[in-house]
Amino acid sequence: MDTDLSPAGIIQIGVGFWGPKILLSAVELEVFTELAKGPLDAESLRKRLRLHPRSARDFFDALVALRMLEKKDGLYSNTHETDFFLDRAKPTYIGGFLEMANARLYGFWGSLTEGLRSGQPQNESKAGGEFFPVLYRDPVRLKQFLQAMTGISMGAAKAIAKKFPWGQHRTFIDVGCAQGCVPVQVALAHPHMSGGGFDLPVVGPIFEEYVASFRLDSRLRFHPGDFFKDPMPKANVLAMGRILHDWDLEEKKTLLAKAYAALPKAGALIIYESLIDDERRHNVFGLLMSLNMLIETKGGFDFTGADCTAWMREVGFRETYVEHLDGPDSMAVGIK
Amino acid sequence: MDTDLSPAGIIQIGVGFWGPKILLSAVELEVFTELAKGPLDAESLRKRLRLHPRSARDFFDALVALRMLEKKDGLYSNTHETDFFLDRAKPTYIGGFLEMANARLYGFWGSLTEGLRSGQPQNESKAGGEFFPVLYRDPVRLKQFLQAMTGISMGAAKAIAKKFPWGQHRTFIDVGCAQGCVPVQVALAHPHMSGGGFDLPVVGPIFEEYVASFRLDSRLRFHPGDFFKDPMPKANVLAMGRILHDWDLEEKKTLLAKAYAALPKAGALIIYESLIDDERRHNVFGLLMSLNMLIETKGGFDFTGADCTAWMREVGFRETYVEHLDGPDSMAVGIK
Repeated sequence: MDTDLSPAGIIQIGVGFWGPKILLSAVELEVFTELAKGPLDAESLRKRLRLHPRSARDFFDALVALRMLEKKDGLYSNTHETDFFLDRAKPTYIGGFLEMANARLYGFWGSLTEGLRSGQPQNESKAGGEFFPVLYRDPVRLKQFLQAMTGISMGAAKAIAKKFPWGQHRTFIDVGCAQGCVPVQVALAHPHMSGGGFDLPVVGPIFEEYVASFRLDSRLRFHPGDFFKDPMPKANVLAMGRILHDWDLEEKKTLLAKAYAALPKAGALIIYESLIDDERRHNVFGLLMSLNMLIETKGGFDFTGADCTAWMREVGFRETYVEHLDGPDSMAVGIK
Repeated sequence: MDTDLSPAGIIQIGVGFWGPKILLSAVELEVFTELAKGPLDAESLRKRLRLHPRSARDFFDALVALRMLEKKDGLYSNTHETDFFLDRAKPTYIGGFLEMANARLYGFWGSLTEGLRSGQPQNESKAGGEFFPVLYRDPVRLKQFLQAMTGISMGAAKAIAKKFPWGQHRTFIDVGCAQGCVPVQVALAHPHMSGGGFDLPVVGPIFEEYVASFRLDSRLRFHPGDFFKDPMPKANVLAMGRILHDWDLEEKKTLLAKAYAALPKAGALIIYESLIDDERRHNVFGLLMSLNMLIETKGGFDFTGADCTAWMREVGFRETYVEHLDGPDSMAVGIK
């Protein structure tokens, strides 16, 4: 071999699923929930979690090396982040998302090659099953899942509250609002704003509980409905986050057109997602998320800011722009 | 949420299996072998690979974002590294390892939680099957796999050739030598050295072909055998790379004692692996590899340099030291 090229980068990505799977198993085994009660040595933690002695210490030390745990004088403890986000006893728990990734996505992604060849989703639907209807029937799991969505959306929500020109508007409704993370952040930052969220009826009580915990129930209301079957609620500003990417191009345009129809003149629509950069080469997360839509949906895909603003103009918006929010997330804004 | 903690790092690791699986599917689909013939636009590449139109462009652009492909003026091409290591037509192809990771490890790691609870391997052995005996029956796949091992070991092999004091010795045999990567690098760098490799008889022709391609067949010979059933061959210096981690503690010590027995006075044993740092907190790869040994073996585990040198002294070595080689790899050296 007459070169100094190294395969290290290739190998590192090729077995790069090891670390993620270790974190997902740690959430499943409630490592962080146990350690939130206090630091433990390896043997005590192993017994609490009922692990076999063979690999427990490797497992804990791998979590230290991945910076998901700390280790000091032989005692393991959570990091600030894992204590806050992965302790099941805290309302800030986002493990619901990772539990779902562990129980479903990790395995379904094993069929990525088949998905790329067939263009067909590789989730429960392959066997005639469905995920969301099952989730919607279990209020405890649904709440945990919607809490996780809140945790994941918090960065984008705070950035939307800060960066969008709210001074020009009075009412705001988030379409597909889940627990209401974005409306709550907007209402907290802008006392003149009112509005709420639109989602399937089953989400209502969970939205209302969350909003009430911020004493915002006088300004934020839940609007039950189905965004394909029902008209969208009216407000100065509408938003949709991680909604459009679930649907095919025609469905995306239908949703954009329905939002346009519900807005007053000079009203605005905010689409917030992990928008792919227009060159389609930098926002890794957005591109991978689009392949996750292959695994999870019939025709969904992620898109660039340029894609989104072009569709917005097609359905009637007269002015559009794209602005970065937080991490991989950006917003595409259309003005009617 | 009254804090600025962000769950971004947790989410990034939690879905961090997406990128790796995309690379593994790309190797399976021979993306890099096709592009080694010349750059292609998205549609031509899609047709060559017989992919469905839905997600092909996302797949290619994700590989660009992961820096496994380049994209210029709408044409996709390999990077220097992926062209060299992932084109099946080149002898430097290491895809055999990634094909194995894709077809076997990705799925088996899905049962990590079960492995942590039971201490039992989670590979073919769960269903009574075996991987290596099947591999050994297929000469084409075996050669490709051993070539991959060469690619993966090259960094460590060059470092061993450079860092070990070869001037004091004349003969060297690598135990569990595969294609002979380490003996070849040592012989190339040190014309006074002779020796060879010890491995199962089926490996012989592949070793000999590789050694002959460097015109080293007068100095390096193949020694067929089973390192548990047969005595180890005699030489001034013996080495074992990624062998000890496959076995439980008693078996590890047996192999170390057999190497000790085969060495002359002042002879040396080199153990080269992804040795875990003594604090067990920095060498992520070594810790994850140890959990891979849970998935793949009955009792194997990775270990620190301190562990290894302690076992060496236990079986009789009078002097020991540990030295870093390359990337996650180090060597533990014992002098008789």
